[in-house]
Amino acid sequence: PAYKRNVWFTEWGKDSGLSLRHTGDKLVDHKSPFQKVEVFNTYKYGKMLTLDGLIMTTEKDEYVYHEMIAHPAMQAHKDAKRVLIVGGGDGGVARELLRYEQLEEVVVAEVDEVVIKTAREHFPKIASSFAHPKTKLEIGDGMKYVSECDDASFDLVIVDSPDRVGPAEGLYSEEFYQNIHRILKPNGIMVAQSESPRFNEHVFVGIANCHRKLFGNDKVWTYLAFVPTYTTGMWAFSFASKGDFKPSSITSEAAASFSKEHDLQYYNEDIHNAAFVLPTYVKKMLEA
Amino acid sequence: PAYKRNVWFTEWGKDSGLSLRHTGDKLVDHKSPFQKVEVFNTYKYGKMLTLDGLIMTTEKDEYVYHEMIAHPAMQAHKDAKRVLIVGGGDGGVARELLRYEQLEEVVVAEVDEVVIKTAREHFPKIASSFAHPKTKLEIGDGMKYVSECDDASFDLVIVDSPDRVGPAEGLYSEEFYQNIHRILKPNGIMVAQSESPRFNEHVFVGIANCHRKLFGNDKVWTYLAFVPTYTTGMWAFSFASKGDFKPSSITSEAAASFSKEHDLQYYNEDIHNAAFVLPTYVKKMLEA
Repeated sequence: PAYKRNVWFTEWGKDSGLSLRHTGDKLVDHKSPFQKVEVFNTYKYGKMLTLDGLIMTTEKDEYVYHEMIAHPAMQAHKDAKRVLIVGGGDGGVARELLRYEQLEEVVVAEVDEVVIKTAREHFPKIASSFAHPKTKLEIGDGMKYVSECDDASFDLVIVDSPDRVGPAEGLYSEEFYQNIHRILKPNGIMVAQSESPRFNEHVFVGIANCHRKLFGNDKVWTYLAFVPTYTTGMWAFSFASKGDFKPSSITSEAAASFSKEHDLQYYNEDIHNAAFVLPTYVKKMLEA
Repeated sequence: PAYKRNVWFTEWGKDSGLSLRHTGDKLVDHKSPFQKVEVFNTYKYGKMLTLDGLIMTTEKDEYVYHEMIAHPAMQAHKDAKRVLIVGGGDGGVARELLRYEQLEEVVVAEVDEVVIKTAREHFPKIASSFAHPKTKLEIGDGMKYVSECDDASFDLVIVDSPDRVGPAEGLYSEEFYQNIHRILKPNGIMVAQSESPRFNEHVFVGIANCHRKLFGNDKVWTYLAFVPTYTTGMWAFSFASKGDFKPSSITSEAAASFSKEHDLQYYNEDIHNAAFVLPTYVKKMLEA
């Protein structure tokens, strides 16, 4: 009896597009001072948040990106107490970080308050972190925020930026990453989403090169995760270490028991290691 | 000066679709006795072969699927001499197998001669294997072919089937896999593409369960590869062993030198192991 309308959202790239069928009713359709914020109800992935027409997160597969941007570094560091998230307005990365009891403060530096409001209203499971006493919201320009932070004040900085368009453009600059390097403690780690080796190829390589220049050639590692709602489904992250920590610094038993205890859906101790293994063509892109 | 038309091919699923921009001229548009065979020239992935509107292979990323369906089993077995491919009409799997000097015969049992003809004409790099003296073409129904093969006559059987629609439907039946088990030598291996854990979920799980029933619970392993042109970008393969070989039977040094010598673009000795590591939610799907 339920009449389902045949309505589709499409994220258009230059030469490719991803379409998802939705109910036809936009739950949010808002022009913020920074971008167009929309929420659709898709049949395949549940509710979906888009910014300027680009898919940011969906109810059904959000955990992949949020777990994979947070846990590899947290497990490698083992004792991160103060963490900065640049971007992250949906709250998902903060939620993953707040699983660690030793964590003392997570700062979310998000430019667009509308994103936070939308997440709190429509994605309460993702945005749950905003109600947590350890979460500190800093609404404003992320680039400016990191430029004003004290030296050596964070154990971990996570760059959860949207694609290199609109308000996030500065988040791909060397100056931005220079500041992140500066505000990290001597043993600090930075993780940034770094696009896809199959899409925005030069951005993907450019991010890795920029990080190597600032952190050192042997202090930057790229890892991958399957994110079906991001273009090509193959998403990359850059893990850069200011001190001695590296991906292999994890304790497998600790990562295993943590993943189990918190009922993580993607990350586990074996995925940690496997994610850093790259297909040959990706290795070649990064060596070139 | 080049006027580029804004023309798109879309592979429509029930609730999702993948669109690729192409030049506008179909290189092939043929209704074979079995299916619609088309070739487009896409901007992102080069020439693309579709069957009944579903993407089968593209020039630019074909090596992912072809390397990953062939080399894990070939490296684990180490001495496969007689191999059967069910499907595989584009020739890509055979090409990968023919890199092994010990190989004596590769039988390609493809139902649709038009696919082979199209591949030879428009994808000569993929279809190069058809000119090789060790390749034996068997045009006809794959299910019937395996039912008529002698017991214990193949070291390796690879099921390179299209999605579970049209002529390939029998290739998802228990009877089909029973015959494959029968025609494998005592130490034989079977590898089948097994859809995506994020798409056709019940087919993905159903294939694994069917293989476990026939080969034994501890003789079946699932592995994954990033294939951006297949729905969700996350593609699965099922590796089933009749005898003692398992994924860890490879010699890492041999896999490394082979991959290097043949200039493989995706597969390498570390990817071999990493591909068998599954995200937690995929493990849970397979345990349920």
